[in-house]
Amino acid sequence: MLNFSYHVPTKVYFGRGQLERLGPALKDLGSRRVLLLYGGGSIKRSGLYDQVVAALGEHGIGFVDVGGVQPNPRVSHVRAAAAACRREKVDAVLAVGGGSVIDEGKAVAAAVFYDGDPWDFCVGRARVERALPLGTVLTLAATGSEMNAGAVISNDETREKLPMFGACLKPRFSILDPTFTFTLPPVQTAAGVADIISHCFEQYFSPTPATYLADRLAEAVIATCVAFGPQALARPDDYDARAELMWASSWGLNDLLSCGKEGDWAVHMVEHELSALNDLSHGVGLAILTPAWMRFVADTPARVAKVAAYGRNVWRLDGTDDDVARAAADKTASFFVDAMKLPGTLKEVGFGAADLKVAAKQATRFGPLGRFRKLNEGDVLTILRAAA
Amino acid sequence: MLNFSYHVPTKVYFGRGQLERLGPALKDLGSRRVLLLYGGGSIKRSGLYDQVVAALGEHGIGFVDVGGVQPNPRVSHVRAAAAACRREKVDAVLAVGGGSVIDEGKAVAAAVFYDGDPWDFCVGRARVERALPLGTVLTLAATGSEMNAGAVISNDETREKLPMFGACLKPRFSILDPTFTFTLPPVQTAAGVADIISHCFEQYFSPTPATYLADRLAEAVIATCVAFGPQALARPDDYDARAELMWASSWGLNDLLSCGKEGDWAVHMVEHELSALNDLSHGVGLAILTPAWMRFVADTPARVAKVAAYGRNVWRLDGTDDDVARAAADKTASFFVDAMKLPGTLKEVGFGAADLKVAAKQATRFGPLGRFRKLNEGDVLTILRAAA
Repeated sequence: MLNFSYHVPTKVYFGRGQLERLGPALKDLGSRRVLLLYGGGSIKRSGLYDQVVAALGEHGIGFVDVGGVQPNPRVSHVRAAAAACRREKVDAVLAVGGGSVIDEGKAVAAAVFYDGDPWDFCVGRARVERALPLGTVLTLAATGSEMNAGAVISNDETREKLPMFGACLKPRFSILDPTFTFTLPPVQTAAGVADIISHCFEQYFSPTPATYLADRLAEAVIATCVAFGPQALARPDDYDARAELMWASSWGLNDLLSCGKEGDWAVHMVEHELSALNDLSHGVGLAILTPAWMRFVADTPARVAKVAAYGRNVWRLDGTDDDVARAAADKTASFFVDAMKLPGTLKEVGFGAADLKVAAKQATRFGPLGRFRKLNEGDVLTILRAAA
Repeated sequence: MLNFSYHVPTKVYFGRGQLERLGPALKDLGSRRVLLLYGGGSIKRSGLYDQVVAALGEHGIGFVDVGGVQPNPRVSHVRAAAAACRREKVDAVLAVGGGSVIDEGKAVAAAVFYDGDPWDFCVGRARVERALPLGTVLTLAATGSEMNAGAVISNDETREKLPMFGACLKPRFSILDPTFTFTLPPVQTAAGVADIISHCFEQYFSPTPATYLADRLAEAVIATCVAFGPQALARPDDYDARAELMWASSWGLNDLLSCGKEGDWAVHMVEHELSALNDLSHGVGLAILTPAWMRFVADTPARVAKVAAYGRNVWRLDGTDDDVARAAADKTASFFVDAMKLPGTLKEVGFGAADLKVAAKQATRFGPLGRFRKLNEGDVLTILRAAA
């Protein structure tokens, strides 16, 4: 186990009706005027927008309305929202939506205090030192952004999609009401589940030895997705299933699962290149790539053993390490395609052979990917072709 | 799943050498003079006391030295330490020790701002509204006090042992260096492991339905104790084993495992009465009582099924619910006695038949205990006699 620091100060209000905490939580931050940031029209159709506006009004909190955050949030939109924050003198950001809206909320919160271009945070030209306080109302169980310090931003001009981080970007509070996810389209529910599972894998498949508790915790989160993903698809208004998935999303990526170990993150890096090319939904890309990646990296006894541990502890498979590892990858593929009804190949989501070459080249432009097994451009292309 | 709030803002610095964070962490709190609170002489013998004093000196932080915290910390000692804090105008409490020292640190931190008697916090005559900031350096993996809002205090005059709580009592930071537990006597290591496991049980065995993720997380922490408790006994300076147990202790009782569910806590309540009688080590009492409690409460199909789930998921037992539940209780008893070398009966630790009657009466003086299965005085006596 490696040394680590752990600090997740986000206040979580979880359950039905917790939107009543919104006004008091913003008051606790001393807020009088917020940026109300959201995506497309879904929160207007569902009535959540009106509930949020009413809660702000009840507590005398003004707001600047900025919708239109896209699924892969654009730095151009971040710039515009940050300009609105400065112009309108808002003192906090309230992100109402899924991971994309929360991620953009983080970028905006930091951009407000930065004189340069916010893309600088993604390419390492600037560090996030200060940000507006951020609160979130979550509408999709997926990214864990509601309880962590990271954001992923896309640049429409350079066709890049890159992460940014800052301890001060951790949401001050997050309202997690599972009923807000009842109206999600099935593919978004499924892609969210794939995202949660992928976060667990990226931390589970680590080169660091002696990480027993962290590994068992990751298996607990994965098993929760396996148990309740199909249930949420079958019955979108199943409160218990939605609640399990929502809480799983937060713990899938809020630092706990990576305490004391190095993560891998190769699949995420490759997926970012794919979704930078054609706006592929992040979770769909992860679901397609993961089984191909898992089969490719199971190439030494130690790595086979780790894949087999996942197979035994999550899928309750029995047999030799080789057999169980192979079956675990098959189970993973079948879970995404058969149980979660997600596409199983890159072809189905519009990628041709030329795209795969571009993605492999782009993904490795800063060097090899991954820590569990290092991947060079050729390795990435092999995985992409296996997922084609 | 029930509605809940979750907020654990403690900064954790985990690993070898993390004592170097002590000075900066206290500086972050704006501290210039702390109460340095500790127990018996073990931190002086191990050299930790000198390291702490040196770290304070390096950062120009003064301290008031108060040792002598007892294993079941006394309210009389709390009063004296709080008086020293007021007299010497300390601005933070630094607890260096195990759960008893940290618990007393919490009581002192609250008592400093309270004009009445600190025992009022334990009997519900006062609420903790304000407290000095608390930092901890942990030397025993057991109570989870390093990351939670609770403390258990004993009253030598009334022979009572009762909990107190306050959100402001959560440590601001905790330094968790597993090497600080290398020199523990074996019985303390074992009692600490029993305490962690018991915390998991108290939250795992709940009447609340639909708590899948919370249950799997609890099993992960229990399995970690089962895997590494005997290893730490066999090799006291095994870093990996000590690290797993230390991190397990924090997550065993820092609110995560009880999110969305009611806990039971009957075994803890009964144990508190036993250790109020003869200063029994808390973890030893829990280890003795738990298997007897587990057998007693497995009396309906639903409760048998829950005990069986524990048996299947932690001990990998197969069979009918009845068989697995019975075997799970036996495995638990055997783990504490055979693997962890703890006493298996109340007789071995000095309790006679008359004591059991007193404990059963005292434990139920405010009403029945437990939520998984309610226990009246007769039930408690039956369990105590089964553990005699």
